[in-house]
Amino acid sequence: MQKYTIAIHGGAGVILRENMTPEKEQEYLGALQVALDAGYAILEQGGSAVDAAKAAVIELEDFPLFNAGRGSVFSKDGVQEMDASIMDGIDRSAGAVAGVRNVRNPILLANEVMRNSDHVFLSGQGAVEFAKKQGLKFESDGYFYSQFRYDQWIAIKDSEKVALDHSQTEKKGEAKEDEVIKVEKKFGTVGAVACDSKGNVAAATSTGGMTNKKYGRIGDSPIIGAGTYANNRTCAVSCTGHGELFIRSVTAYDVHAIMDYKNESLKNACEEVVMKKLVEIGGDGGLIAVDRFGNAELPFNCPGMYRGVRSSDGLNKVLIYKDE
Amino acid sequence: MQKYTIAIHGGAGVILRENMTPEKEQEYLGALQVALDAGYAILEQGGSAVDAAKAAVIELEDFPLFNAGRGSVFSKDGVQEMDASIMDGIDRSAGAVAGVRNVRNPILLANEVMRNSDHVFLSGQGAVEFAKKQGLKFESDGYFYSQFRYDQWIAIKDSEKVALDHSQTEKKGEAKEDEVIKVEKKFGTVGAVACDSKGNVAAATSTGGMTNKKYGRIGDSPIIGAGTYANNRTCAVSCTGHGELFIRSVTAYDVHAIMDYKNESLKNACEEVVMKKLVEIGGDGGLIAVDRFGNAELPFNCPGMYRGVRSSDGLNKVLIYKDE
Repeated sequence: MQKYTIAIHGGAGVILRENMTPEKEQEYLGALQVALDAGYAILEQGGSAVDAAKAAVIELEDFPLFNAGRGSVFSKDGVQEMDASIMDGIDRSAGAVAGVRNVRNPILLANEVMRNSDHVFLSGQGAVEFAKKQGLKFESDGYFYSQFRYDQWIAIKDSEKVALDHSQTEKKGEAKEDEVIKVEKKFGTVGAVACDSKGNVAAATSTGGMTNKKYGRIGDSPIIGAGTYANNRTCAVSCTGHGELFIRSVTAYDVHAIMDYKNESLKNACEEVVMKKLVEIGGDGGLIAVDRFGNAELPFNCPGMYRGVRSSDGLNKVLIYKDE
Repeated sequence: MQKYTIAIHGGAGVILRENMTPEKEQEYLGALQVALDAGYAILEQGGSAVDAAKAAVIELEDFPLFNAGRGSVFSKDGVQEMDASIMDGIDRSAGAVAGVRNVRNPILLANEVMRNSDHVFLSGQGAVEFAKKQGLKFESDGYFYSQFRYDQWIAIKDSEKVALDHSQTEKKGEAKEDEVIKVEKKFGTVGAVACDSKGNVAAATSTGGMTNKKYGRIGDSPIIGAGTYANNRTCAVSCTGHGELFIRSVTAYDVHAIMDYKNESLKNACEEVVMKKLVEIGGDGGLIAVDRFGNAELPFNCPGMYRGVRSSDGLNKVLIYKDE
């Protein structure tokens, strides 16, 4: 019997137990479980991988502690600009959006682009116009506002700290207040991958981008091949990490390519991409992946990644730190 | 001795001899030769692959008959929004911009993003702000204006012909006026790839997008991995074609992956990607590629591609149609 599986992430980075209260930890784990269960319920009812991944990402977007949808970080101009992408492994159809504002669930907009447009990638005000035409739900700035993200932005908005964000010199394991801010900027992403009971795979990724970002920066999350990829021949992948290095590494597609062209297992392909190739280029972060047999991998090369996996063989766990 | 080579393209599509006057043909071929020679001169003087590719693309952007820089097509709103990307195979550094207006040479902006920012991909007004900060040259709308493109836009602006643009039902070999417009919309892109005398490779791509495009559509040209990719391990690639299908196929990176993981030659990898995989998915278009030994391939699966290749072994040709 075909195993069905969903895996999710809520971002990766210098997430350390000593910087977390037990209450906050429970809050994160609870939110991960809600998202995991939302996706799993769809798979259990015989639903599609793409619907399961979408349902999980909607929950993660709606939860204000993750940097996507509600709770997105503030850009240099004090606004929240969101990116998302989705891909269906059945026919490799895909949809992506970058720099959208006030759209409640950017992943639903990416899905509309995939299903009901001639395009794959829409951006900015034009993408918002398309969202209106498709009747998607909008929210006021107040809905997206969180004191937590606002305080992060206020703390760095007049500095050039966005530059510091990309320094590769930070010492891991010594997270100070500054570094916590950096982590939020770098690795704030959510994503889901699923394999359904028919063996179809799909991937979805959503993000609020980097705190204090400027110049209309686009990271890997809305880039098909970099942050998101799905192909029934092999697997589905959603990434979270230092976006620029994931773009240059074409990370999500690379997992597929290693499986397809070198005939490697999902586990070996993930190991090569996350633990070797990304590390060599300084690409901190991780990814979640499922293959067409329902096997899941959740590798990351930094101290922590908010993540979870649930499968029809009974596997069901949500985790934050390494070595749990 | 290391062979050095430059290859260029000015777009692909339903380009047929019967729709071309001998005068226009000479104009295109002349412009291709100028761009080819500009890039080749840099290689001949011992310059880098990335500088050669950039120099060739600048010439193609400045020539008003190609859809990039001066001569870009008009969007639904009657403006010219341009995309570009560049990648250096030495260290896989990359820069890309989408939806920029009034920047004289978008490829130079992509190069600034690569060399002088912490980012890979900037978009819209933010990318234009970065261009100003870097002191790049701007031009008025009048500079970019061409009667030819304006007439194309006027002919379809009140229709929904942009939708028709992506129909896969057009009969090739029977290009009517409508189809000529479609071709311009679909495949208007320029690009260059080079291998220098040190065996370094680089790729650059630039476009004015689709006539009458809306919703802030982004095609494959600024997407690292889809429209542009370079890696000294294997090759450099610049694509031109039906952008959405090139994004979903991660086309440029796929040529690299097949060479790297299956140990195939550039020729075989190009054949598999352009003549098999793209054809299967309905992805009309082509690409230019050079490997690290200075070998070039210029495959396309449609009637024509404006293209040229010049190499230190004496090869020097510019072409438009198939089977020349």
